[in-house]
Amino acid sequence: MARIVQKFGGTSVADLDRIRHVATRVKAEVDQGNQVAVVVSAMAGVTNQLVGYCSDIAPFHDAREYDAVVATGEQVTSGLLALALQELGVEARSWLGWQIPINTDGAHGKARITEINAPALIERLERGQVAVVPGFQGLGPDNRITTLGRGGSDTSAVALAAALDAERCDIYTDVDGVYTTDPRIVPNARKLSRITYEEMLEMASLGAKVLQTRSVEMAMKYRVRLQVLSSFIEAPGTLVCDEDEIVEKELVSGIAYSRDEAKITLVKVADRPGVAARIFGPLAEGNINVDMIVQNVSDDGKATDLTFTVGKNDLDRAVKLLEARRDDLGFQDLVKDSGVVKVSVIGVGMRSHAGVAQTMFTALADKGINIQVISTSEIKVSVLIAEDYTELALRALHAAYGLDA
Amino acid sequence: MARIVQKFGGTSVADLDRIRHVATRVKAEVDQGNQVAVVVSAMAGVTNQLVGYCSDIAPFHDAREYDAVVATGEQVTSGLLALALQELGVEARSWLGWQIPINTDGAHGKARITEINAPALIERLERGQVAVVPGFQGLGPDNRITTLGRGGSDTSAVALAAALDAERCDIYTDVDGVYTTDPRIVPNARKLSRITYEEMLEMASLGAKVLQTRSVEMAMKYRVRLQVLSSFIEAPGTLVCDEDEIVEKELVSGIAYSRDEAKITLVKVADRPGVAARIFGPLAEGNINVDMIVQNVSDDGKATDLTFTVGKNDLDRAVKLLEARRDDLGFQDLVKDSGVVKVSVIGVGMRSHAGVAQTMFTALADKGINIQVISTSEIKVSVLIAEDYTELALRALHAAYGLDA
Repeated sequence: MARIVQKFGGTSVADLDRIRHVATRVKAEVDQGNQVAVVVSAMAGVTNQLVGYCSDIAPFHDAREYDAVVATGEQVTSGLLALALQELGVEARSWLGWQIPINTDGAHGKARITEINAPALIERLERGQVAVVPGFQGLGPDNRITTLGRGGSDTSAVALAAALDAERCDIYTDVDGVYTTDPRIVPNARKLSRITYEEMLEMASLGAKVLQTRSVEMAMKYRVRLQVLSSFIEAPGTLVCDEDEIVEKELVSGIAYSRDEAKITLVKVADRPGVAARIFGPLAEGNINVDMIVQNVSDDGKATDLTFTVGKNDLDRAVKLLEARRDDLGFQDLVKDSGVVKVSVIGVGMRSHAGVAQTMFTALADKGINIQVISTSEIKVSVLIAEDYTELALRALHAAYGLDA
Repeated sequence: MARIVQKFGGTSVADLDRIRHVATRVKAEVDQGNQVAVVVSAMAGVTNQLVGYCSDIAPFHDAREYDAVVATGEQVTSGLLALALQELGVEARSWLGWQIPINTDGAHGKARITEINAPALIERLERGQVAVVPGFQGLGPDNRITTLGRGGSDTSAVALAAALDAERCDIYTDVDGVYTTDPRIVPNARKLSRITYEEMLEMASLGAKVLQTRSVEMAMKYRVRLQVLSSFIEAPGTLVCDEDEIVEKELVSGIAYSRDEAKITLVKVADRPGVAARIFGPLAEGNINVDMIVQNVSDDGKATDLTFTVGKNDLDRAVKLLEARRDDLGFQDLVKDSGVVKVSVIGVGMRSHAGVAQTMFTALADKGINIQVISTSEIKVSVLIAEDYTELALRALHAAYGLDA
């Protein structure tokens, strides 16, 4: 007998029929003798409608009222799933964020969970009652409803799993697991049976939209074993777990890409101490995230070219900010390019193996793909290339690392 | 400066534009220097949709989950109205049932308010902040959301007005007050400026659907001055208040009617002690309300005819119950008639004046309308007549009591 947290996202609880179907998936766990807590999202379209109402009434709305309005979506699903479970003869009840309570900080609209101390809920679980918990919501220090920000239901599920000391947190979604790369682009992509937290974190932050980065971070911190699986197909998914749990480690686990990058090059920046701080300071203050940074060696010791990437959505703002400081920063020209993609190979195995980057560079060169920027970390190598080459690069790398099915 | 509770029903908050309009009505009170608490219903169609979801998932649903689902409708409106007020520069916040808290008993789906102890809310009111409170909901002893049953928002408003010791509870609705009779039938009907609790209670229970009976009972009990007025027209409505506040009392204040009646006659019932108890006992057990009862004088001391009315919806069930006991009850025949209407003249003035009933009987006789059953109380006379005569009777009585405008 194990204690399991199951989380069903928006597409899994889109309408009443899907909610009924989810109830059968929950019942299957209960029938195996497991204690089950279920975290649910809002039904299809509901959150968007509620957010739309708030924006219509007040474009710059009080986040506390926004939270009170938007949190109702998950509340409705919780009650309905509890009813659907009861119809199947499964004892169940809904537990709203303020009832458990799921305590958060006071950052309405993007709150962080601070504590879940749930003796009453645990007592019911131990008696065999299923707990249905609305995701995305908590209780702030002001005794008002908070929401965790978009995608917060994954975080709710992981936090609950940590608080309940659950054996596993199953995230049901519309894909059946984590793949070596995007199967829509590389038909040979394989579903991974296991992946480490670190790798999943890189995958998530690099554009694989299976899990929210924040929920993976939390899972890693509290060592919650996460399983990603489909609510429509009955098959095991991908387990995100500790490195120790993975016997056969691959050198490279996956290849991720992100089209959400744009490149800025400052031509002929003065090559003197402090210039980087003067460039990136204003961007940081403007809340613009800078990702990859490359500074060329200066030809003459006087001026150099500086290239970096920002989110595509921030490009115009970043350009404006920099142009306004052109005299102060002393660059000759600013070149921007949003037609780029970041491709990354990821694997904890590369910590102990040389040559991973070299394989990447060779594979790309063989296809005539020019690398514009490179950045590396302990478990990944990322390159920036022209967006047109995305598919070609992914297929070449997938084959080069022996990941093809 | 006064403390006012305003309540806006479903049609008044039907959509975002109406909610914005409601905000202007609230602001008008605030601008006069009043402390304002607002009670709101769900937006148009929302409650029906949520109730529909519950019934679809589970025909016989757990009322606790039903409450958690259905209460979200009013929660959404509260948050949105608070935002709309803030947009007008009015300080406002939503207070959910569990936050105030509005304590109720544990009868989920039809709970009764037991206590509202709202020091935090009052403190904010005194600082000039408008409180927006979802109607229809409270917090049960199990720390779960309860709902007060259909039309419960009026009750929420009155209970809140009592707890806040408010000067007035304004119920905004789609009519502009209480009329001497139904203006759709009698064009000469007049809007009453004042009416006593007792009269309003009779009007409400006799079919004038302006206010919920329960909310009027509560207003009478706690001496909350209730005003019924339109959210669409800027004009004073009808004040429901203590008799002492009404200087010029009319003999008759209004004429109500109810088509929700059906007549049953048991022909030749044995005329012996205990027979009435044996007839009405099973009906009471079947949860069927019996209203008017007439027992004729027995011709021969052996058998009598017994006539009574039940709700139209209960007619078939009542007939079935009685037929099943025909041998035991010993009646010869059962005659049912759903083509009847109950017409009532209501007025606290009749306590001290004779002749009110006589005026009614004469007016109806003059029009050739046959009276089938009569019942009276201290402040009303009701008669049952054939439904076809409804309009004729209402107009004749309205004129006979000098109520015509």
